[in-house]
Amino acid sequence: MTRSFGQRLQTSIARFGQLCVGIDPHDFLLDAWGLPRTVAGLREFGLRVVDAAHGTLGIVKPQVAFFEAFGSAGFAALEEIIATARSAGLLVIADAKRGDIGSSVEAYGEAWLKPGSPLEADAVTLAAYAGTGSLTGVFELARLHGKGAFVLAATSNPESHGVQSATISAGDRRGSTVAGLVATEIDEWNRTRPGADTGESSALGSIGVVLGATKNLLDYGVDVRNLGDTAPRMPVLAPGFGHQGAQFARLRPIYGPLAAGTIVSTSRSALSSGPSDLRKTLADQADQLAGALS
Amino acid sequence: MTRSFGQRLQTSIARFGQLCVGIDPHDFLLDAWGLPRTVAGLREFGLRVVDAAHGTLGIVKPQVAFFEAFGSAGFAALEEIIATARSAGLLVIADAKRGDIGSSVEAYGEAWLKPGSPLEADAVTLAAYAGTGSLTGVFELARLHGKGAFVLAATSNPESHGVQSATISAGDRRGSTVAGLVATEIDEWNRTRPGADTGESSALGSIGVVLGATKNLLDYGVDVRNLGDTAPRMPVLAPGFGHQGAQFARLRPIYGPLAAGTIVSTSRSALSSGPSDLRKTLADQADQLAGALS
Repeated sequence: MTRSFGQRLQTSIARFGQLCVGIDPHDFLLDAWGLPRTVAGLREFGLRVVDAAHGTLGIVKPQVAFFEAFGSAGFAALEEIIATARSAGLLVIADAKRGDIGSSVEAYGEAWLKPGSPLEADAVTLAAYAGTGSLTGVFELARLHGKGAFVLAATSNPESHGVQSATISAGDRRGSTVAGLVATEIDEWNRTRPGADTGESSALGSIGVVLGATKNLLDYGVDVRNLGDTAPRMPVLAPGFGHQGAQFARLRPIYGPLAAGTIVSTSRSALSSGPSDLRKTLADQADQLAGALS
Repeated sequence: MTRSFGQRLQTSIARFGQLCVGIDPHDFLLDAWGLPRTVAGLREFGLRVVDAAHGTLGIVKPQVAFFEAFGSAGFAALEEIIATARSAGLLVIADAKRGDIGSSVEAYGEAWLKPGSPLEADAVTLAAYAGTGSLTGVFELARLHGKGAFVLAATSNPESHGVQSATISAGDRRGSTVAGLVATEIDEWNRTRPGADTGESSALGSIGVVLGATKNLLDYGVDVRNLGDTAPRMPVLAPGFGHQGAQFARLRPIYGPLAAGTIVSTSRSALSSGPSDLRKTLADQADQLAGALS
Protein backbone atom coordinates (compact mmCIF):
# COMPACT_ATOMS: atom_id res chain seq x y z
CA MET A 1 0.00 0.00 0.00
CA THR A 2 1.29 3.45 -0.92
CA ARG A 3 2.31 5.54 2.06
CA SER A 4 0.55 8.88 2.12
CA PHE A 5 2.45 12.12 1.69
CA GLY A 6 1.45 13.01 5.26
CA GLN A 7 3.07 9.82 6.55
CA ARG A 8 6.21 10.42 4.52
CA LEU A 9 6.35 14.03 5.72
CA GLN A 10 6.02 12.86 9.30
CA THR A 11 8.90 10.42 8.88
CA SER A 12 11.00 13.15 7.29
CA ILE A 13 10.27 15.61 10.10
CA ALA A 14 11.09 13.00 12.74
CA ARG A 15 14.46 12.37 11.16
CA PHE A 16 15.52 15.76 9.79
CA GLY A 17 13.26 18.33 11.40
CA GLN A 18 11.05 20.97 9.83
CA LEU A 19 13.45 23.05 7.77
CA CYS A 20 13.08 23.08 3.99
CA VAL A 21 15.43 24.84 1.60
CA GLY A 22 14.20 26.67 -1.46
CA ILE A 23 15.83 26.10 -4.83
CA ASP A 24 15.49 29.70 -5.96
CA PRO A 25 18.11 30.54 -8.58
CA HIS A 26 17.82 34.32 -8.46
CA ASP A 27 20.18 36.15 -10.78
CA PHE A 28 22.01 37.69 -7.82
CA LEU A 29 22.59 34.25 -6.32
CA LEU A 30 23.85 32.78 -9.60
CA ASP A 31 26.27 35.72 -9.79
CA ALA A 32 27.37 35.25 -6.19
CA TRP A 33 27.89 31.53 -6.72
CA GLY A 34 29.98 32.18 -9.85
CA LEU A 35 27.41 30.49 -12.08
CA PRO A 36 26.19 31.76 -15.44
CA ARG A 37 22.63 33.09 -15.83
CA THR A 38 21.81 30.20 -18.14
CA VAL A 39 20.08 26.84 -17.98
CA ALA A 40 23.46 25.28 -17.19
CA GLY A 41 23.80 27.72 -14.30
CA LEU A 42 20.31 26.89 -13.01
CA ARG A 43 21.00 23.18 -13.25
CA GLU A 44 24.30 23.43 -11.39
CA PHE A 45 22.72 25.67 -8.76
CA GLY A 46 19.88 23.23 -8.16
CA LEU A 47 22.12 20.18 -7.99
CA ARG A 48 24.42 21.92 -5.50
CA VAL A 49 21.48 22.80 -3.25
CA VAL A 50 20.28 19.19 -3.44
CA ASP A 51 23.77 17.97 -2.58
CA ALA A 52 23.99 20.31 0.42
CA ALA A 53 20.51 19.32 1.61
CA HIS A 54 21.12 15.58 1.25
CA GLY A 55 21.65 14.13 4.73
CA THR A 56 21.11 17.56 6.32
CA LEU A 57 17.46 18.37 5.64
CA GLY A 58 14.45 16.35 4.57
CA ILE A 59 12.74 18.70 2.11
CA VAL A 60 13.65 20.90 -0.85
CA LYS A 61 11.32 23.36 -2.60
CA PRO A 62 12.22 24.42 -6.14
CA GLN A 63 10.60 27.69 -7.25
CA VAL A 64 9.26 26.74 -10.68
CA ALA A 65 9.07 30.30 -12.03
CA PHE A 66 12.85 30.63 -12.29
CA PHE A 67 13.02 27.50 -14.45
CA GLU A 68 9.95 28.39 -16.52
CA ALA A 69 11.67 31.63 -17.56
CA PHE A 70 14.03 29.42 -19.61
CA GLY A 71 11.19 27.49 -21.28
CA SER A 72 11.48 23.80 -22.09
CA ALA A 73 15.23 23.79 -21.45
CA GLY A 74 14.61 25.22 -17.99
CA PHE A 75 12.04 22.53 -17.32
CA ALA A 76 14.51 19.86 -18.43
CA ALA A 77 16.95 21.16 -15.81
CA LEU A 78 14.18 21.19 -13.22
CA GLU A 79 13.27 17.58 -14.07
CA GLU A 80 16.86 16.54 -13.46
CA ILE A 81 17.06 18.45 -10.18
CA ILE A 82 13.76 17.00 -8.91
CA ALA A 83 14.73 13.45 -9.91
CA THR A 84 18.15 13.80 -8.26
CA ALA A 85 16.58 15.10 -5.06
CA ARG A 86 14.00 12.33 -4.94
CA SER A 87 16.63 9.67 -5.63
CA ALA A 88 18.55 11.05 -2.65
CA GLY A 89 15.47 10.50 -0.49
CA LEU A 90 14.54 14.17 -0.21
CA LEU A 91 10.89 15.20 -0.36
CA VAL A 92 10.34 17.68 -3.17
CA ILE A 93 7.65 20.36 -2.94
CA ALA A 94 7.29 21.95 -6.39
CA ASP A 95 6.51 25.60 -5.69
CA ALA A 96 4.37 26.14 -8.77
CA LYS A 97 1.26 27.89 -7.35
CA ARG A 98 -0.87 26.27 -10.04
CA GLY A 99 -4.60 26.60 -10.25
CA ASP A 100 -7.35 26.24 -12.85
CA ILE A 101 -10.64 24.43 -13.22
CA GLY A 102 -11.90 21.10 -14.54
CA SER A 103 -9.67 19.09 -16.82
CA SER A 104 -7.01 21.82 -16.83
CA VAL A 105 -6.35 21.68 -13.11
CA GLU A 106 -6.31 17.88 -13.35
CA ALA A 107 -3.61 18.16 -16.00
CA TYR A 108 -1.56 20.27 -13.56
CA GLY A 109 -2.07 17.56 -10.96
CA GLU A 110 -0.81 14.95 -13.40
CA ALA A 111 2.18 17.09 -14.32
CA TRP A 112 3.48 17.37 -10.75
CA LEU A 113 2.04 14.39 -8.88
CA LYS A 114 1.47 11.47 -11.24
CA PRO A 115 4.06 8.72 -10.87
CA GLY A 116 6.22 8.58 -13.96
CA SER A 117 5.52 12.17 -15.01
CA PRO A 118 8.75 13.91 -16.05
CA LEU A 119 8.14 16.59 -13.40
CA GLU A 120 6.97 14.16 -10.70
CA ALA A 121 7.46 15.74 -7.29
CA ASP A 122 6.11 14.76 -3.85
CA ALA A 123 3.85 17.77 -3.44
CA VAL A 124 2.91 20.92 -5.31
CA THR A 125 1.73 24.36 -4.23
CA LEU A 126 -1.68 25.47 -5.54
CA ALA A 127 -3.78 28.65 -5.60
CA ALA A 128 -7.53 28.56 -5.05
CA TYR A 129 -8.73 31.80 -6.65
CA ALA A 130 -11.53 29.71 -8.20
CA GLY A 131 -12.32 28.10 -4.81
CA THR A 132 -10.80 25.08 -3.08
CA GLY A 133 -13.56 23.06 -4.75
CA SER A 134 -11.83 23.68 -8.08
CA LEU A 135 -8.77 21.80 -6.76
CA THR A 136 -10.37 18.58 -5.55
CA GLY A 137 -9.31 16.71 -8.69
CA VAL A 138 -5.71 17.33 -7.66
CA PHE A 139 -6.38 16.34 -4.04
CA GLU A 140 -7.90 13.02 -5.20
CA LEU A 141 -4.93 12.37 -7.48
CA ALA A 142 -2.60 13.16 -4.57
CA ARG A 143 -4.40 10.70 -2.31
CA LEU A 144 -4.32 7.99 -4.94
CA HIS A 145 -0.56 8.28 -5.43
CA GLY A 146 0.65 9.14 -1.92
CA LYS A 147 1.34 12.75 -2.92
CA GLY A 148 0.56 16.09 -1.30
CA ALA A 149 -0.42 19.67 -2.02
CA PHE A 150 -0.20 23.02 -0.23
CA VAL A 151 -2.88 25.57 -1.01
CA LEU A 152 -2.21 29.29 -0.59
CA ALA A 153 -4.23 30.64 2.34
CA ALA A 154 -2.42 33.74 3.72
CA THR A 155 0.62 34.73 1.68
CA SER A 156 3.56 36.71 2.99
CA ASN A 157 3.28 39.77 0.71
CA PRO A 158 1.70 43.06 1.79
CA GLU A 159 -0.62 43.33 -1.27
CA SER A 160 -2.50 40.18 -0.27
CA HIS A 161 -4.63 41.60 2.51
CA GLY A 162 -7.59 42.83 0.43
CA VAL A 163 -8.35 39.51 -1.25
CA GLN A 164 -7.34 37.19 1.57
CA SER A 165 -9.13 39.04 4.38
CA ALA A 166 -12.34 39.55 2.36
CA THR A 167 -15.48 38.17 4.04
CA ILE A 168 -17.50 35.29 2.62
CA SER A 169 -20.99 36.67 2.01
CA ALA A 170 -23.18 33.58 1.68
CA GLY A 171 -23.42 29.88 2.46
CA ASP A 172 -22.18 27.78 5.38
CA ARG A 173 -18.95 29.76 5.75
CA ARG A 174 -20.61 33.17 5.76
CA GLY A 175 -18.55 35.53 7.88
CA SER A 176 -15.23 33.77 7.52
CA THR A 177 -12.44 35.33 5.50
CA VAL A 178 -11.11 34.00 2.21
CA ALA A 179 -7.91 32.83 3.94
CA GLY A 180 -9.96 31.36 6.79
CA LEU A 181 -12.26 29.60 4.33
CA VAL A 182 -9.32 28.03 2.50
CA ALA A 183 -7.68 26.90 5.75
CA THR A 184 -10.94 25.51 7.16
CA GLU A 185 -11.87 23.68 3.97
CA ILE A 186 -8.43 22.11 3.68
CA ASP A 187 -8.45 21.15 7.36
CA GLU A 188 -11.82 19.50 6.79
CA TRP A 189 -10.56 17.73 3.68
CA ASN A 190 -7.79 16.07 5.71
CA ARG A 191 -10.13 14.99 8.47
CA THR A 192 -12.96 13.69 6.30
CA ARG A 193 -10.93 12.01 3.55
CA PRO A 194 -8.01 10.64 5.49
CA GLY A 195 -7.41 7.54 3.36
CA ALA A 196 -4.11 6.08 4.47
CA ASP A 197 -3.79 8.64 7.24
CA THR A 198 -6.32 7.06 9.59
CA GLY A 199 -5.55 5.48 12.91
CA GLU A 200 -2.74 7.59 14.33
CA SER A 201 -3.68 10.53 16.48
CA SER A 202 -0.36 12.20 15.73
CA ALA A 203 -0.69 11.72 11.98
CA LEU A 204 -0.20 14.48 9.46
CA GLY A 205 -2.62 14.92 6.59
CA SER A 206 -1.50 15.15 2.99
CA ILE A 207 -3.10 18.42 1.91
CA GLY A 208 -1.73 21.51 3.61
CA VAL A 209 -1.93 25.27 3.43
CA VAL A 210 0.57 28.07 2.92
CA LEU A 211 0.47 30.50 5.84
CA GLY A 212 3.07 33.26 5.73
CA ALA A 213 5.00 33.86 8.92
CA THR A 214 5.19 37.60 8.37
CA LYS A 215 1.51 38.07 9.03
CA ASN A 216 -0.81 38.36 11.97
CA LEU A 217 -2.89 35.38 10.94
CA LEU A 218 -5.86 36.49 13.04
CA ASP A 219 -5.90 39.70 11.02
CA TYR A 220 -6.44 37.42 8.00
CA GLY A 221 -9.23 35.58 9.78
CA VAL A 222 -7.15 32.44 10.29
CA ASP A 223 -7.44 31.20 13.88
CA VAL A 224 -4.95 28.35 14.20
CA ARG A 225 -6.48 27.33 17.54
CA ASN A 226 -9.49 26.05 15.63
CA LEU A 227 -7.38 24.11 13.17
CA GLY A 228 -5.40 20.95 13.62
CA ASP A 229 -7.05 19.86 16.87
CA THR A 230 -8.24 16.64 15.25
CA ALA A 231 -6.01 14.11 13.52
CA PRO A 232 -4.78 13.97 10.92
CA ARG A 233 -3.34 17.40 11.41
CA MET A 234 -3.16 19.75 8.44
CA PRO A 235 0.44 20.42 7.42
CA VAL A 236 1.58 24.00 6.84
CA LEU A 237 4.17 25.44 4.50
CA ALA A 238 5.54 28.61 6.03
CA PRO A 239 7.41 31.19 3.97
CA GLY A 240 8.53 34.45 5.50
CA PHE A 241 11.34 33.34 7.81
CA GLY A 242 14.86 34.63 7.33
CA HIS A 243 15.10 37.23 4.58
CA GLN A 244 11.47 38.27 4.95
CA GLY A 245 11.97 38.89 8.63
CA ALA A 246 10.26 36.27 10.80
CA GLN A 247 12.29 34.58 13.55
CA PHE A 248 12.21 30.85 14.33
CA ALA A 249 11.23 31.66 17.92
CA ARG A 250 7.93 32.96 16.53
CA LEU A 251 6.98 29.56 15.08
CA ARG A 252 5.00 28.28 18.06
CA PRO A 253 3.23 31.57 18.80
CA ILE A 254 2.22 31.96 15.14
CA TYR A 255 1.22 28.39 14.29
CA GLY A 256 -0.02 27.10 17.67
CA PRO A 257 -1.32 23.54 17.38
CA LEU A 258 -0.14 23.38 13.77
CA ALA A 259 3.49 24.15 14.68
CA ALA A 260 4.59 20.49 14.80
CA GLY A 261 3.49 19.99 11.19
CA THR A 262 4.78 23.31 9.87
CA ILE A 263 7.50 23.24 7.25
CA VAL A 264 9.74 26.26 7.60
CA SER A 265 11.07 27.44 4.29
CA THR A 266 14.48 29.07 4.10
CA SER A 267 15.84 30.47 0.91
CA ARG A 268 17.81 33.67 0.46
CA SER A 269 19.11 33.76 4.04
CA ALA A 270 20.69 30.31 3.55
CA LEU A 271 21.55 30.41 -0.15
CA SER A 272 23.39 33.73 0.22
CA SER A 273 26.05 31.94 2.23
CA GLY A 274 27.32 30.48 -1.05
CA PRO A 275 27.67 26.89 -2.21
CA SER A 276 30.70 25.88 -0.17
CA ASP A 277 29.15 26.91 3.14
CA LEU A 278 25.61 25.91 2.30
CA ARG A 279 25.57 22.52 4.02
CA LYS A 280 26.88 24.03 7.23
CA THR A 281 24.47 26.98 7.02
CA LEU A 282 21.54 24.63 6.54
CA ALA A 283 22.66 22.44 9.44
CA ASP A 284 23.03 25.51 11.64
CA GLN A 285 19.59 26.82 10.69
CA ALA A 286 18.07 23.38 11.28
CA ASP A 287 19.67 23.32 14.74
CA GLN A 288 18.36 26.79 15.51
CA LEU A 289 14.88 25.77 14.41
CA ALA A 290 14.96 22.58 16.46
CA GLY A 291 16.14 24.63 19.43
CA ALA A 292 13.32 27.11 19.00
CA LEU A 293 10.83 24.23 18.90
CA SER A 294 12.20 22.24 21.84
CA MET B 1 7.96 52.57 -30.89
CA THR B 2 6.46 49.24 -29.82
CA ARG B 3 2.74 48.97 -30.42
CA SER B 4 0.87 48.06 -27.26
CA PHE B 5 -0.94 44.76 -26.91
CA GLY B 6 -4.20 46.71 -26.69
CA GLN B 7 -3.47 48.34 -30.07
CA ARG B 8 -2.57 45.01 -31.63
CA LEU B 9 -5.69 43.41 -30.17
CA GLN B 10 -7.80 46.22 -31.59
CA THR B 11 -6.31 45.72 -35.06
CA SER B 12 -6.91 41.98 -34.80
CA ILE B 13 -10.55 42.46 -33.74
CA ALA B 14 -11.17 44.94 -36.57
CA ARG B 15 -9.90 42.43 -39.10
CA PHE B 16 -10.96 39.04 -37.72
CA GLY B 17 -13.54 39.74 -35.04
CA GLN B 18 -13.63 38.66 -31.44
CA LEU B 19 -13.52 34.87 -31.59
CA CYS B 20 -10.49 33.07 -30.15
CA VAL B 21 -9.92 29.34 -30.37
CA GLY B 22 -8.45 27.36 -27.49
CA ILE B 23 -5.61 24.92 -28.11
CA ASP B 24 -6.83 22.37 -25.57
CA PRO B 25 -5.54 18.89 -26.42
CA HIS B 26 -7.88 16.88 -24.20
CA ASP B 27 -7.39 13.13 -24.41
CA PHE B 28 -10.85 12.68 -25.91
CA LEU B 29 -10.04 15.19 -28.65
CA LEU B 30 -6.69 13.56 -29.46
CA ASP B 31 -8.57 10.25 -29.75
CA ALA B 32 -11.26 11.78 -31.95
CA TRP B 33 -8.66 13.41 -34.17
CA GLY B 34 -6.80 10.10 -34.56
CA LEU B 35 -3.74 11.46 -32.77
CA PRO B 36 -1.69 9.66 -30.12
CA ARG B 37 -1.82 10.79 -26.47
CA THR B 38 1.84 11.77 -26.69
CA VAL B 39 3.92 14.90 -27.15
CA ALA B 40 3.87 14.23 -30.90
CA GLY B 41 0.07 14.12 -30.73
CA LEU B 42 -0.07 17.39 -28.79
CA ARG B 43 2.28 19.05 -31.24
CA GLU B 44 0.29 17.92 -34.27
CA PHE B 45 -2.98 18.93 -32.61
CA GLY B 46 -1.68 22.41 -31.84
CA LEU B 47 -0.21 22.97 -35.30
CA ARG B 48 -3.48 21.89 -36.93
CA VAL B 49 -5.47 24.33 -34.80
CA VAL B 50 -3.02 27.09 -35.71
CA ASP B 51 -3.36 26.17 -39.39
CA ALA B 52 -7.17 26.25 -39.20
CA ALA B 53 -7.14 29.57 -37.33
CA HIS B 54 -4.67 31.25 -39.70
CA GLY B 55 -6.62 33.62 -41.94
CA THR B 56 -9.88 32.75 -40.16
CA LEU B 57 -9.44 34.12 -36.62
CA GLY B 58 -7.05 36.56 -35.00
CA ILE B 59 -6.33 34.88 -31.68
CA VAL B 60 -5.41 31.44 -30.32
CA LYS B 61 -5.24 30.45 -26.67
CA PRO B 62 -3.17 27.39 -25.75
CA GLN B 63 -4.07 25.82 -22.38
CA VAL B 64 -0.65 25.37 -20.80
CA ALA B 65 -1.70 22.64 -18.36
CA PHE B 66 -2.10 20.03 -21.10
CA PHE B 67 1.48 20.65 -22.25
CA GLU B 68 2.92 20.85 -18.74
CA ALA B 69 1.60 17.33 -18.06
CA PHE B 70 4.30 16.15 -20.48
CA GLY B 71 7.08 18.11 -18.78
CA SER B 72 9.92 19.70 -20.73
CA ALA B 73 9.00 17.79 -23.90
CA GLY B 74 5.46 19.15 -23.68
CA PHE B 75 6.85 22.66 -23.27
CA ALA B 76 9.06 22.17 -26.33
CA ALA B 77 5.93 21.33 -28.36
CA LEU B 78 4.18 24.36 -26.90
CA GLU B 79 7.11 26.59 -27.85
CA GLU B 80 6.87 25.40 -31.43
CA ILE B 81 3.09 25.88 -31.55
CA ILE B 82 3.32 29.40 -30.10
CA ALA B 83 6.13 30.39 -32.47
CA THR B 84 4.25 29.01 -35.47
CA ALA B 85 1.10 30.88 -34.49
CA ARG B 86 2.96 34.16 -33.95
CA SER B 87 4.81 33.78 -37.26
CA ALA B 88 1.43 33.39 -38.92
CA GLY B 89 0.37 36.72 -37.43
CA LEU B 90 -1.95 35.25 -34.81
CA LEU B 91 -2.07 36.75 -31.34
CA VAL B 92 -1.27 34.11 -28.73
CA ILE B 93 -2.78 34.25 -25.25
CA ALA B 94 -0.98 31.69 -23.09
CA ASP B 95 -3.62 30.36 -20.73
CA ALA B 96 -1.28 29.69 -17.82
CA LYS B 97 -3.12 31.27 -14.86
CA ARG B 98 0.20 32.09 -13.24
CA GLY B 99 0.56 34.01 -10.04
CA ASP B 100 3.14 34.50 -7.29
CA ILE B 101 4.87 37.35 -5.52
CA GLY B 102 8.06 39.39 -5.90
CA SER B 103 10.84 38.02 -8.06
CA SER B 104 8.92 34.80 -8.72
CA VAL B 105 5.99 36.49 -10.43
CA GLU B 106 8.47 38.58 -12.40
CA ALA B 107 10.10 35.37 -13.61
CA TYR B 108 6.69 34.19 -14.83
CA GLY B 109 6.30 37.49 -16.64
CA GLU B 110 9.67 36.99 -18.31
CA ALA B 111 8.78 33.42 -19.26
CA TRP B 112 5.66 34.39 -21.20
CA LEU B 113 6.12 38.03 -22.20
CA LYS B 114 9.81 38.83 -22.60
CA PRO B 115 10.88 39.12 -26.24
CA GLY B 116 13.20 36.25 -27.11
CA SER B 117 11.94 33.99 -24.33
CA PRO B 118 11.37 30.45 -25.64
CA LEU B 119 7.73 30.64 -24.51
CA GLU B 120 7.18 34.23 -25.71
CA ALA B 121 3.46 34.81 -26.25
CA ASP B 122 1.48 38.03 -26.75
CA ALA B 123 -0.42 37.83 -23.48
CA VAL B 124 -0.71 35.51 -20.48
CA THR B 125 -3.52 34.76 -18.04
CA LEU B 126 -2.79 35.46 -14.37
CA ALA B 127 -4.43 34.79 -10.99
CA ALA B 128 -4.41 37.39 -8.22
CA TYR B 129 -4.96 35.33 -5.06
CA ALA B 130 -2.17 37.43 -3.51
CA GLY B 131 -3.80 40.66 -4.76
CA THR B 132 -3.51 42.48 -8.08
CA GLY B 133 -0.68 44.45 -6.47
CA SER B 134 1.39 41.26 -6.52
CA LEU B 135 1.15 41.24 -10.33
CA THR B 136 2.30 44.77 -11.14
CA GLY B 137 5.79 43.58 -12.04
CA VAL B 138 4.22 41.58 -14.88
CA PHE B 139 2.02 44.51 -15.94
CA GLU B 140 5.07 46.76 -16.17
CA LEU B 141 6.96 44.16 -18.19
CA ALA B 142 3.95 43.84 -20.48
CA ARG B 143 3.82 47.60 -21.04
CA LEU B 144 7.53 47.76 -21.77
CA HIS B 145 7.35 45.07 -24.44
CA GLY B 146 3.91 45.68 -25.99
CA LYS B 147 2.47 42.60 -24.30
CA GLY B 148 -0.74 41.94 -22.41
CA ALA B 149 -2.22 40.01 -19.49
CA PHE B 150 -5.68 38.84 -18.42
CA VAL B 151 -6.30 38.53 -14.69
CA LEU B 152 -8.96 36.13 -13.37
CA ALA B 153 -11.87 38.10 -11.93
CA ALA B 154 -15.02 35.92 -12.12
CA THR B 155 -14.32 32.40 -13.40
CA SER B 156 -16.88 30.15 -15.05
CA ASN B 157 -16.87 27.28 -12.52
CA PRO B 158 -19.54 26.85 -9.82
CA GLU B 159 -17.03 26.46 -6.95
CA SER B 160 -15.71 29.99 -7.43
CA HIS B 161 -18.54 31.92 -5.82
CA GLY B 162 -17.32 31.86 -2.20
CA VAL B 163 -13.90 33.41 -2.86
CA GLN B 164 -14.85 35.69 -5.75
CA SER B 165 -17.99 37.16 -4.17
CA ALA B 166 -16.36 37.71 -0.77
CA THR B 167 -16.53 41.31 0.48
CA ILE B 168 -13.46 43.48 0.96
CA SER B 169 -13.43 44.43 4.63
CA ALA B 170 -11.08 47.42 4.82
CA GLY B 171 -9.45 50.17 2.82
CA ASP B 172 -10.60 52.22 -0.18
CA ARG B 173 -12.44 49.31 -1.77
CA ARG B 174 -14.32 48.30 1.36
CA GLY B 175 -17.64 46.77 0.37
CA SER B 176 -16.66 45.63 -3.12
CA THR B 177 -16.31 41.94 -3.87
CA VAL B 178 -13.04 40.18 -4.66
CA ALA B 179 -14.05 39.88 -8.33
CA GLY B 180 -15.21 43.50 -8.34
CA LEU B 181 -11.96 44.61 -6.72
CA VAL B 182 -9.87 42.82 -9.34
CA ALA B 183 -11.94 44.24 -12.22
CA THR B 184 -11.88 47.78 -10.79
CA GLU B 185 -8.15 47.72 -10.08
CA ILE B 186 -7.34 46.43 -13.56
CA ASP B 187 -9.68 48.99 -15.14
CA GLU B 188 -7.88 51.68 -13.18
CA TRP B 189 -4.49 50.32 -14.21
CA ASN B 190 -5.39 50.71 -17.88
CA ARG B 191 -6.68 54.24 -17.43
CA THR B 192 -3.89 55.56 -15.26
CA ARG B 193 -0.92 53.86 -16.92
CA PRO B 194 -1.94 53.96 -20.56
CA GLY B 195 1.52 54.29 -22.07
CA ALA B 196 1.20 53.76 -25.80
CA ASP B 197 -2.58 53.55 -25.51
CA THR B 198 -3.17 57.28 -25.06
CA GLY B 199 -4.93 59.51 -27.48
CA GLU B 200 -7.63 57.35 -29.01
CA SER B 201 -11.02 57.31 -27.36
CA SER B 202 -11.79 53.90 -28.85
CA ALA B 203 -8.50 52.38 -27.70
CA LEU B 204 -8.22 49.09 -25.86
CA GLY B 205 -5.97 48.75 -22.85
CA SER B 206 -3.36 46.02 -22.55
CA ILE B 207 -4.30 44.46 -19.21
CA GLY B 208 -7.66 42.72 -19.16
CA VAL B 209 -9.75 40.50 -16.96
CA VAL B 210 -11.31 37.06 -17.28
CA LEU B 211 -15.07 37.22 -16.78
CA GLY B 212 -16.92 33.96 -17.31
CA ALA B 213 -20.01 34.15 -19.48
CA THR B 214 -21.84 31.50 -17.47
CA LYS B 215 -22.26 33.81 -14.50
CA ASN B 216 -24.52 36.58 -13.40
CA LEU B 217 -21.68 39.07 -13.03
CA LEU B 218 -23.69 41.32 -10.71
CA ASP B 219 -24.01 38.36 -8.36
CA TYR B 220 -20.19 38.43 -8.25
CA GLY B 221 -20.22 42.15 -7.56
CA VAL B 222 -18.95 43.04 -11.03
CA ASP B 223 -21.00 45.86 -12.54
CA VAL B 224 -19.80 46.22 -16.12
CA ARG B 225 -21.68 49.53 -16.46
CA ASN B 226 -19.07 51.09 -14.18
CA LEU B 227 -16.18 49.68 -16.15
CA GLY B 228 -14.84 50.59 -19.54
CA ASP B 229 -16.58 53.96 -19.77
CA THR B 230 -13.25 55.73 -20.07
CA ALA B 231 -10.60 54.99 -22.69
CA PRO B 232 -8.57 52.94 -22.95
CA ARG B 233 -11.19 50.28 -22.41
CA MET B 234 -10.26 47.20 -20.41
CA PRO B 235 -10.25 44.07 -22.61
CA VAL B 236 -12.06 40.97 -21.41
CA LEU B 237 -11.36 37.30 -22.00
CA ALA B 238 -14.63 35.39 -21.86
CA PRO B 239 -14.74 31.64 -21.34
CA GLY B 240 -18.04 29.82 -20.96
CA PHE B 241 -19.50 30.05 -24.46
CA GLY B 242 -20.30 26.89 -26.42
CA HIS B 243 -19.70 23.72 -24.41
CA GLN B 244 -20.23 25.49 -21.08
CA GLY B 245 -23.58 26.78 -22.25
CA ALA B 246 -23.54 30.54 -22.93
CA GLN B 247 -24.93 31.78 -26.26
CA PHE B 248 -23.28 34.46 -28.41
CA ALA B 249 -26.50 36.49 -28.27
CA ARG B 250 -25.82 36.97 -24.55
CA LEU B 251 -22.52 38.78 -25.18
CA ARG B 252 -23.91 42.33 -25.18
CA PRO B 253 -26.29 41.83 -22.23
CA ILE B 254 -23.51 40.26 -20.16
CA TYR B 255 -20.58 42.53 -21.01
CA GLY B 256 -22.34 45.83 -21.72
CA PRO B 257 -19.83 48.59 -22.52
CA LEU B 258 -17.00 46.05 -22.44
CA ALA B 259 -18.56 43.90 -25.18
CA ALA B 260 -16.59 45.48 -28.04
CA GLY B 261 -13.32 44.53 -26.36
CA THR B 262 -14.40 41.08 -25.22
CA ILE B 263 -12.56 38.07 -26.63
CA VAL B 264 -14.90 35.10 -26.89
CA SER B 265 -13.12 31.84 -26.33
CA THR B 266 -14.33 28.73 -28.11
CA SER B 267 -12.78 25.37 -27.48
CA ARG B 268 -14.56 22.02 -27.20
CA SER B 269 -17.59 23.11 -29.25
CA ALA B 270 -15.30 23.94 -32.20
CA LEU B 271 -12.52 21.39 -31.71
CA SER B 272 -15.01 18.51 -31.49
CA SER B 273 -15.81 19.05 -35.17
CA GLY B 274 -12.48 17.40 -35.99
CA PRO B 275 -9.42 18.70 -37.82
CA SER B 276 -10.78 18.58 -41.38
CA ASP B 277 -13.85 20.67 -40.59
CA LEU B 278 -12.20 22.94 -38.05
CA ARG B 279 -11.52 25.90 -40.35
CA LYS B 280 -15.11 25.94 -41.54
CA THR B 281 -16.46 25.51 -38.00
CA LEU B 282 -14.35 28.41 -36.77
CA ALA B 283 -15.45 30.58 -39.71
CA ASP B 284 -19.10 29.71 -39.01
CA GLN B 285 -18.76 30.49 -35.31
CA ALA B 286 -16.99 33.77 -36.12
CA ASP B 287 -19.87 34.69 -38.45
CA GLN B 288 -22.43 33.82 -35.79
CA LEU B 289 -20.56 35.93 -33.25
CA ALA B 290 -20.29 38.87 -35.64
CA GLY B 291 -24.00 38.53 -36.36
CA ALA B 292 -24.85 38.51 -32.66
CA LEU B 293 -22.77 41.67 -32.19
CA SER B 294 -24.08 43.60 -35.21
